[in-house]
Amino acid sequence: MTPKEHENNKEDKDDEVVLDSEHMKRYINGEIWDFEDEIMAVSDDVLLGLDGGTTSTVCICMPCIPFSHSQLHSLPILSKTVAGCSNHNSVGEIAARETLEQVMADALSKCGSKRSSVRAICLAVSGVNHPTDQQRILSWLRDIFPSHVRLYVRNDAVAALASGTIGKLHGCVLIAGTGTIAYGFTEDGKEARAAGAGPVLGDWGSGYGIAAQALSAVIKAHDGRGPNTMLTSSILQKLGLSSAEELIGWTYADPSWARIAALVPVVVSCAEDGDEVANKILLESVQELASSVKAVVERLGLCGQDGKDAFPLVMVGGVLEANRRWDIGTKVINYLSKDFPRVLPIRPKVEPAVGAAWLAWNFFMKEEFHKEA
Amino acid sequence: MTPKEHENNKEDKDDEVVLDSEHMKRYINGEIWDFEDEIMAVSDDVLLGLDGGTTSTVCICMPCIPFSHSQLHSLPILSKTVAGCSNHNSVGEIAARETLEQVMADALSKCGSKRSSVRAICLAVSGVNHPTDQQRILSWLRDIFPSHVRLYVRNDAVAALASGTIGKLHGCVLIAGTGTIAYGFTEDGKEARAAGAGPVLGDWGSGYGIAAQALSAVIKAHDGRGPNTMLTSSILQKLGLSSAEELIGWTYADPSWARIAALVPVVVSCAEDGDEVANKILLESVQELASSVKAVVERLGLCGQDGKDAFPLVMVGGVLEANRRWDIGTKVINYLSKDFPRVLPIRPKVEPAVGAAWLAWNFFMKEEFHKEA
Repeated sequence: MTPKEHENNKEDKDDEVVLDSEHMKRYINGEIWDFEDEIMAVSDDVLLGLDGGTTSTVCICMPCIPFSHSQLHSLPILSKTVAGCSNHNSVGEIAARETLEQVMADALSKCGSKRSSVRAICLAVSGVNHPTDQQRILSWLRDIFPSHVRLYVRNDAVAALASGTIGKLHGCVLIAGTGTIAYGFTEDGKEARAAGAGPVLGDWGSGYGIAAQALSAVIKAHDGRGPNTMLTSSILQKLGLSSAEELIGWTYADPSWARIAALVPVVVSCAEDGDEVANKILLESVQELASSVKAVVERLGLCGQDGKDAFPLVMVGGVLEANRRWDIGTKVINYLSKDFPRVLPIRPKVEPAVGAAWLAWNFFMKEEFHKEA
Repeated sequence: MTPKEHENNKEDKDDEVVLDSEHMKRYINGEIWDFEDEIMAVSDDVLLGLDGGTTSTVCICMPCIPFSHSQLHSLPILSKTVAGCSNHNSVGEIAARETLEQVMADALSKCGSKRSSVRAICLAVSGVNHPTDQQRILSWLRDIFPSHVRLYVRNDAVAALASGTIGKLHGCVLIAGTGTIAYGFTEDGKEARAAGAGPVLGDWGSGYGIAAQALSAVIKAHDGRGPNTMLTSSILQKLGLSSAEELIGWTYADPSWARIAALVPVVVSCAEDGDEVANKILLESVQELASSVKAVVERLGLCGQDGKDAFPLVMVGGVLEANRRWDIGTKVINYLSKDFPRVLPIRPKVEPAVGAAWLAWNFFMKEEFHKEA
């Protein structure tokens, strides 16, 4: 839904006429935070971590207790809430804001907190690709929360990294789900990214990329432009279609990337069953994913001058999760180990929103420490 | 606009409530054809040729005179009208129908004809990929025109072929504009196609494919995943952007294929100026386009058993039009000549809608001849 359509929808639902995005925001703002009037006494300080993706948005509320960093992973989760897409590129600016605001309000409401007890928020959202994206989000976030609340806005990849490093921004994260991105940080705060630009701009190692190439291979085999492949019968069966031509209507009917990426397990199965075409697609995906990591690691010098320094590589997303025999994640690590023998792969045990909350804690403690010093 | 949205829009504009697509069609039908009441005497028989593409729809009205096929190209054009997109995959079924009906009504109105004087219609529209697409269009077309009118529904590639062969369905056509497709016919009526499935399904030789790969190359160079290329400064300058990151927002803002394909001339210029990355993209496009033609020619045996029979290859679309030095069309022919030494390239002098009108004439005369025999 575009922001424009969104506004129109609002007008249909309510009698109040919404004139522009500025009025809109205040109006929603008021209603969303009504629960605060019901909360009488608020006890402890809290922090919020948000992971805003193209599929869903997760918000985690944690206590804001100053203690040793090594104990950070033992911070309890006070509440967790989930909402829909908050990527402004996909749903428009206004819908994205409303989703983010709502998911934070719900998380606070659920654990009996309100905005005044929030110390810090780390908002890690997909679609933050440029400093202007960051500024735009910071400025509306500033309007919602009291001025003492520390605000940190990052790309969602940063939360995924933090989920594997317990809130420490050091090393590289590789995300490969529907989309893919590699993001890295040095200990002294330099950062770099590769890919994460969407399929038009060549994210071919992603779940979408793998599945789109499999679909292309089916069409090519049908046309006589490519070799026959098991993918034809497997994909047609999975989608309940009777011929390769019907794939054209199927892709046009709903071009959402997630719907296409959902075919990845079929491609993996075909490769496991020895299909050469599927195997080649997965091998190329491994190379694409590894080359994204390599670009980030080399630009940041994470591997040291001789390429032999140790660095963490956090791996996140459905494409990298272990499969029966054809394991894309392990192949990516094997591929990278040739160049970087001391790459330390980490598969996080917590979700990225927890990583965002840990980041909020880390940023906040660092600033408090500097203030005191 | 989806069919649903389209219906809603209609409801906004008129007081009359449109309940379903069946009511909708009759309602529009009535208004569109009102002009017929004004036409008093109708003189001669006419035929209609339509080329319905994703960008625009063109309708040509020609006289339906029985004379020698060799004189077909001298048939005068009585009227020509142009409308928007009529690909049902892009705009939905109802909007596509309305566009097609309107453009035909306008063409008849313009030359003072009405439906009763139409002898034959050839509707060549993109999005006709399956016999069910053809049947669906035929059935609503049947409701609009008197029963004596002969109706032929084909993929738009067929009109492009006919525009180069003066209405004869023999040989192969290669279209490469925003999208690409190869379509061929044998003299005894066998047909085959390759590509034309859209970019998700691997039409990489198309204008969209070339430009998307150029954009990917810019992102890869920026990330450190690929070599530096002239494409970066040329594309950013063309789009008025100041950094490669801004391309992400640019592609999300409007993912229409035509908008991306409009960058092809930039890629060609860079290749002409010696950029290796641009050159490689164009060479791969040539191979993709040639492989589509090859698949069709081989499946139909257009080149004979020894590969040396002559056959026409009609070449249509912006990507294949002659450029200063880097000429994609000529390179495709050179590539194909190795396998098919007697390929006869044709660059049509008339537009595909004229080809559709010629087809209507040919189909009609053939049926009339069979009836008399």
